[in-house]
Amino acid sequence: MNNFIDLRSDTVTQPTKSMREAMYNADVGDDILGEDSTVKKLESMSAEILGKESALFVTSGTMGNQLAVMAMANRGEEVLIGDSSHIFNLEVGGLAALSQVQTRSFPIPEGVYDLNYLEEHIQPKAIQTPKTALICLENTNNLNAGMVVPQANLDHVYQLAKDKGIFVHMDGARIFNASVKTGIPVSRIVSGADTVMFALTKGLSAPFGAILAGNEETINKARWLKQRIGGGYRQAGFLAAPGIVALESMISRLEEDHENALYLGNELSKIEGLYVDTGRIHTNIVVASLKGLSLEIDQLIQDLLDVNIKVKKISKSSFRMVTHYGITRNEIQIASKSIRDIISNKIM
Amino acid sequence: MNNFIDLRSDTVTQPTKSMREAMYNADVGDDILGEDSTVKKLESMSAEILGKESALFVTSGTMGNQLAVMAMANRGEEVLIGDSSHIFNLEVGGLAALSQVQTRSFPIPEGVYDLNYLEEHIQPKAIQTPKTALICLENTNNLNAGMVVPQANLDHVYQLAKDKGIFVHMDGARIFNASVKTGIPVSRIVSGADTVMFALTKGLSAPFGAILAGNEETINKARWLKQRIGGGYRQAGFLAAPGIVALESMISRLEEDHENALYLGNELSKIEGLYVDTGRIHTNIVVASLKGLSLEIDQLIQDLLDVNIKVKKISKSSFRMVTHYGITRNEIQIASKSIRDIISNKIM
Amino acid sequence: MNNFIDLRSDTVTQPTKSMREAMYNADVGDDILGEDSTVKKLESMSAEILGKESALFVTSGTMGNQLAVMAMANRGEEVLIGDSSHIFNLEVGGLAALSQVQTRSFPIPEGVYDLNYLEEHIQPKAIQTPKTALICLENTNNLNAGMVVPQANLDHVYQLAKDKGIFVHMDGARIFNASVKTGIPVSRIVSGADTVMFALTKGLSAPFGAILAGNEETINKARWLKQRIGGGYRQAGFLAAPGIVALESMISRLEEDHENALYLGNELSKIEGLYVDTGRIHTNIVVASLKGLSLEIDQLIQDLLDVNIKVKKISKSSFRMVTHYGITRNEIQIASKSIRDIISNKIM
Amino acid sequence: MNNFIDLRSDTVTQPTKSMREAMYNADVGDDILGEDSTVKKLESMSAEILGKESALFVTSGTMGNQLAVMAMANRGEEVLIGDSSHIFNLEVGGLAALSQVQTRSFPIPEGVYDLNYLEEHIQPKAIQTPKTALICLENTNNLNAGMVVPQANLDHVYQLAKDKGIFVHMDGARIFNASVKTGIPVSRIVSGADTVMFALTKGLSAPFGAILAGNEETINKARWLKQRIGGGYRQAGFLAAPGIVALESMISRLEEDHENALYLGNELSKIEGLYVDTGRIHTNIVVASLKGLSLEIDQLIQDLLDVNIKVKKISKSSFRMVTHYGITRNEIQIASKSIRDIISNKIM
Repeated sequence: MNNFIDLRSDTVTQPTKSMREAMYNADVGDDILGEDSTVKKLESMSAEILGKESALFVTSGTMGNQLAVMAMANRGEEVLIGDSSHIFNLEVGGLAALSQVQTRSFPIPEGVYDLNYLEEHIQPKAIQTPKTALICLENTNNLNAGMVVPQANLDHVYQLAKDKGIFVHMDGARIFNASVKTGIPVSRIVSGADTVMFALTKGLSAPFGAILAGNEETINKARWLKQRIGGGYRQAGFLAAPGIVALESMISRLEEDHENALYLGNELSKIEGLYVDTGRIHTNIVVASLKGLSLEIDQLIQDLLDVNIKVKKISKSSFRMVTHYGITRNEIQIASKSIRDIISNKIM
Repeated sequence: MNNFIDLRSDTVTQPTKSMREAMYNADVGDDILGEDSTVKKLESMSAEILGKESALFVTSGTMGNQLAVMAMANRGEEVLIGDSSHIFNLEVGGLAALSQVQTRSFPIPEGVYDLNYLEEHIQPKAIQTPKTALICLENTNNLNAGMVVPQANLDHVYQLAKDKGIFVHMDGARIFNASVKTGIPVSRIVSGADTVMFALTKGLSAPFGAILAGNEETINKARWLKQRIGGGYRQAGFLAAPGIVALESMISRLEEDHENALYLGNELSKIEGLYVDTGRIHTNIVVASLKGLSLEIDQLIQDLLDVNIKVKKISKSSFRMVTHYGITRNEIQIASKSIRDIISNKIM
Repeated sequence: MNNFIDLRSDTVTQPTKSMREAMYNADVGDDILGEDSTVKKLESMSAEILGKESALFVTSGTMGNQLAVMAMANRGEEVLIGDSSHIFNLEVGGLAALSQVQTRSFPIPEGVYDLNYLEEHIQPKAIQTPKTALICLENTNNLNAGMVVPQANLDHVYQLAKDKGIFVHMDGARIFNASVKTGIPVSRIVSGADTVMFALTKGLSAPFGAILAGNEETINKARWLKQRIGGGYRQAGFLAAPGIVALESMISRLEEDHENALYLGNELSKIEGLYVDTGRIHTNIVVASLKGLSLEIDQLIQDLLDVNIKVKKISKSSFRMVTHYGITRNEIQIASKSIRDIISNKIM
Repeated sequence: MNNFIDLRSDTVTQPTKSMREAMYNADVGDDILGEDSTVKKLESMSAEILGKESALFVTSGTMGNQLAVMAMANRGEEVLIGDSSHIFNLEVGGLAALSQVQTRSFPIPEGVYDLNYLEEHIQPKAIQTPKTALICLENTNNLNAGMVVPQANLDHVYQLAKDKGIFVHMDGARIFNASVKTGIPVSRIVSGADTVMFALTKGLSAPFGAILAGNEETINKARWLKQRIGGGYRQAGFLAAPGIVALESMISRLEEDHENALYLGNELSKIEGLYVDTGRIHTNIVVASLKGLSLEIDQLIQDLLDVNIKVKKISKSSFRMVTHYGITRNEIQIASKSIRDIISNKIM
C-alpha cells in the first residue's frame, strides 16, 4: 500500500519508527485499575498543553466527543451545533443514541458561529421547551475545508455561554493545526471551553487515540462513562506511548502540511476549469470542484487511482485532498501534475 | 374568566354544551382492556375521515406525535424536521429523550419543504452515518402563522420518501383548518403519510385529546407504547365523547374562524406603523409586528390585558392572535379597535 | 355489560352519579397554561392528604410512577425494585425505555422488603458500577394479593435510603386500602418517601387519573416531564372533577370492599380442593388456586363467564377476584356459590 | 511492579515478548476504512475458532457485550440475565444506558441457569408487558469463582430460546478456560448462541481487546454501532497483532493456570479456619473465606501486601486469587505459605 500517494485523509498516516519503538518498550499496567504509568504521563502532558485540570486518554475523537456530551448534558436537553460539524454528521447519531439530547443544528459558513442565532436559540425556561445544555464548537472545521475559527468568534461564544450558564465543548480534532496556523497557543484557543477533545492521529500521526480534557469533576465522570461504553483498556500504555511521541515531536511539523496544502491548492487553481478557493486553505485540506468541467467526479477519481493516487469524493462535483506526515512536496507535485494531465486529456 | 377576549390560542376554547352532555351520558368501559365503546367509536370515525386503516385516541397532540416517532424510528436514527415545527420546538425535547433520534432541522419558510434539501440529506449507508428513518411534516404550520402547505409540495415529499424507503409523519394538529381552507379532503391531504396526528382541541373545541392514525401494525405498536408512557386510561369514554361531537359538528364552522382572522388581519393592517402580512393569513392565526413603532411589546400586551383582551407575545416585537369557537365577529371588532386605540394614544 | 359480576379488577368500576355530575359542571381552563381551577383544587387536596409539598394530576398510575423515576434518576443509574412490583412487570419496560435505568429486581415475599439485601446491593462508587439512585416500594402490593407492607418495614427502608443518600418512590396505587386496613394515616405511611403515587381509579372509583406527590422541586420537574410524554391536557378539570369526589366520599367505603373480600375468601376456602390462603387477604384481592383439583383453569373461567361472572387468570392454576364499588355482598354470594357449583359438578 | 505476586485478576498479566514484537512489526492500515490487514486476520481466525460467520475486534469485553445487546435488542425490551453476571454487575449500567433494555435478573447458583424460571419469565405479548428479546449467558462465570456451565444446561437454554424466538448472547470472556477444562471445543460450547464475546486479555495475556462473533448481519450492525460509541480505531493492527499471538500460542497453557489454582486451593483448604470450597475451582479462580476466623479481611490483605502479594477482596469476609500467565508454581507456594503464616500469627 506504500506505493500510493494517499490524500484521502490524514487518518491514513503510518506512524513513525519512533512510535513503533515507543510501543515496543512501553511500561504498562492495568489502566482500568489506574496502574498504567504511560497513560498517566500522556494524560498529564495533555492537560498541561490544553491548560485544563485533567485529561483522559480515549480510543478516538468520536469517543472523546460523545463522552463530553454524555458528561455534561442530560436526556432531553438541547445541544446547539454547527450543521457541518463532525459530531453531528459523522458520529452515527451518537448524540441522540447515547446522550438523548436534541440537536439544534445551524449553518456555520466558513466555520464561524452566528452569535445572534445562538443567543436567540438558547431556550427560555418554559413548560414546552427543553433546556439548552451545551454548545458544540469545532476548530479546525473538518467539513469546511479545515478552516480556522477566528479567535474573537470563539471568545464571543465562550462569553455568551458563560453568561447563560451553559457548557461549551470544543471538538479540536485538529486543534494543533489551528494553533500552528495562527500562532495562538492551544491553551488560549480553548480557554473558555469546558471540555476539549483533540486527536493524536491525523496530523500528529499516532496510530490511535484522542484526548478529552476539562475540569477534574467532568473528566472523572467521563472516565467512568468511558468504562460503560467499553472504552476501558487493560495494558493501555502501548496505545498511549506513540501519543507521547506525537506530542513531543510532531506538532511543529504541521507547518509543512500547511505549506504543502497551499502549494497544492495554488497549483490546482491554475488548471483550466478546476475550481479551488485558495483563500479557504487555512491548514492541511484542499477542496477542488469540477463544476466547470464536463468530467465526471467518479471518472477522475478512478483515473487518479490508476496512477496510484487516492483522493476523496465529498460531493457530486468536488473532492478533497489532505496533506499529512509521509506526503512529500515531491508527491504533491506528482499528484498535481496527474490531475492536470487527466483533466487536459479529458477535455481535449 | 369569561369576560376576557382570549386570543392567545385556540387551545383555550371552552367546550360546547353538547360536549358536556356527551360526557355526562357517555357509555364507558375499561379502555386498557379494550372495552370502552365510546373510544372505539371515536377511533373508527377518525380512521375513516383520515383514510387510514386504524386510529388511536391519545391525550394530546404531543403524545400523538411522540408515539408516531417512537413507533417508526429506532435509537440513533435521524429525523428530518422543519426548524419551526411544533414537534421540534414545543415538545420538550421528546424526540431525543423518548425515541433517541437525531433531529436534522432545516428552514421551512412559509411552511414549504425544500425537496432538494431533503434529497441531499437522506443519509447514504456508511460506517459513520446514522440511518434516515423519518420525515416529519406539519400542516397547517403553527409557528408559520398557520399557513397551509401546498398539496403539490406535500405530494413531492410523499413521493421522495416512498422512493427512498423512509417514513413520513404528519403533525396535523390543525389539519381540518387546512382542509376547510383548500377544500381538499383531509384523507387526500394526508394520503402519502404513514401516520397522521390531529387535535380534537383547538379549532374543534373538544376539551382534550388527539388522534394518531396509520396502518394497523403501526397503530397497534403505538397503542402498546402509549401504555408505556402512562397514556392508558380506564373509563376513557368520558374523554372521547366530546371528540365525537367535535368531529360531527365542529369542522365546518372553522370557516368562520378563518373569516374572522382575515377580517382582523385586514383591520389591523390599516393601523399606521403596525405590520400585518395578510397574505400569510391562511387560516385562524394572525401575526402582527411592532417593528415600525416605538411601542414596547410588553406594554401593548399589558394595555390590552387592562381592557380584558389577551394576545400572545411570540418575539421581541411581534404578537399573535388566534380566532376560535366562542370568539365572535363583535369581539374581533372590539379587539381590533382596542389595539388601534392603544397604538394611537402611545404614538401621539 | 352491567349484567356481569366483574371481579377481574377494581379498575373496571363504573363511576358514581356524583362523579358524572361533577364532570358536567366542572369549571375548567387551559391546564397546560396552569389555568384550570379544578385541577389545582385536586392537586392541593392530594398534597395535603399525603403530607407532601406539592402534587401533580396525571393520566394514570403508570404515568405517575414513570415520571417519578424520570425525575429522580439519571440514565445508567440503578433502581432497586421488588420483582413482583407493578412498575417492573406491568409498565411495558418503561423504566429502561424512558429513564434508562438498570433494574435490580429482588424477591419481596408477602410484600416485605429484605433490608439486608437492600443494604448489600446499594452500589459502592467504583469504576465498573452504576450509581444506585432509587428504591421503589409498593403498598399495597398488587401482585402479592394486595397485601399491606408492615409500617416498620417501610420505616426501615426509609431510614436506610436516607442514610445512603438515595431516593424512595412509593407506588401507592392502592395506598388508601393500606390506610383503611391499618388505621395509619396515608401521610404517615408515606412519610419517608420522596415521591408517592396513588390512583383515583380502582377502589376510589374515579374513571381516570392518579396523583404524584413530593417536594416542590421534584414535582415541578415531573410536571415538565409530563408535558414531554404528552400527558399535558387542555381543559383537564373535567378529568379532575371526579377525582375530587373520590377523595371526598370514597375512601372510607373501602372498608366494605375489604369485608367483602374476606367474606369471599372464607367462603371459597370451604370448597373442597380449592386453595385460598385467607391470611393473605389484607385488602380487596382474593387469590384462589386449583392445584388440588383436576379442573383446568381456562375451563373454570369460561364456565363462570357463562353465568355472567368474570374473574382473572393469573397463573396456570390460579385466578384472582377483586372487590370494588358496585360489587355487593349479594353478588359475592352469587359468585361464591357459582364457583362452588362448577367445581362440584366437575369433580363429581 | 514486577516484584509483586499479583493474584487480584488475570487482567494484570503482562504480555509476552512475542506480543511486543508482533506489535512492533505489525502491518497496519486505516481500520475504519476496512484497510487493516492484521485486524482482518484476527477477525477471521476468531470467527473460525468460534464457528460463527463473522467476527469483530473490539476494545474490551464490556464493549463486545454491550454491542451485542445494542445489536439485538430494542429500547424497552427485556433481557433475562443472571444476577451474578459481569454484564449486569460490572458494566456501569450500560444495558439500560446504551440499549434501554429492562434487566430481569435471577439467581444462577453455581453458574447454572434455571430453565423453569426462564420459561416462566419469557413475556407473553400483552398491552402491559415488554417483549423479551434476549437471554445473556456467561461461561465461565466470573463472580461464581470461574465455574464452568454444564454443556447440557447451555444446550437447554439454546433450545428454549430457539423455540421462543429470542436471542442468546454468551459472555465468554473466559470461554477458553471452559473449553480447556472440559475438552469441549469452543465452537461446540457456543453452538446455539447468536453472539459470543471472548477476551484476548485475561488468561490469553494480550494487552487489550476482545472479539464479538455472530452471523454477518448482526456483526455488521455491531461494527456500525462500534463506530457510534467511539470504538473505531485507525491503525488498529497494532492492537490486533498480540491477539493473534494469543490465539496461536496461549490457549493450551491455560491448563497450567487451572493446575496452579487447584494446587493453591488445596493448600489453602488445609489452613485451620480458612474456608475454601475446592469443588468450585473449575478453572483459574480461587475464593477463600475468613468467616471461621477472627481476622479482619482488610488486615489480611494489608499484611499480604506488606510481603508483596496482592489478592482481591470480594466481600466482607472473602477474597479471591486468580492464576495467570507469569504466575509460577513457586509463586503460588510463596503466596500459600504467606497466607498460612499470617493467619497462624494472628490467631495465636
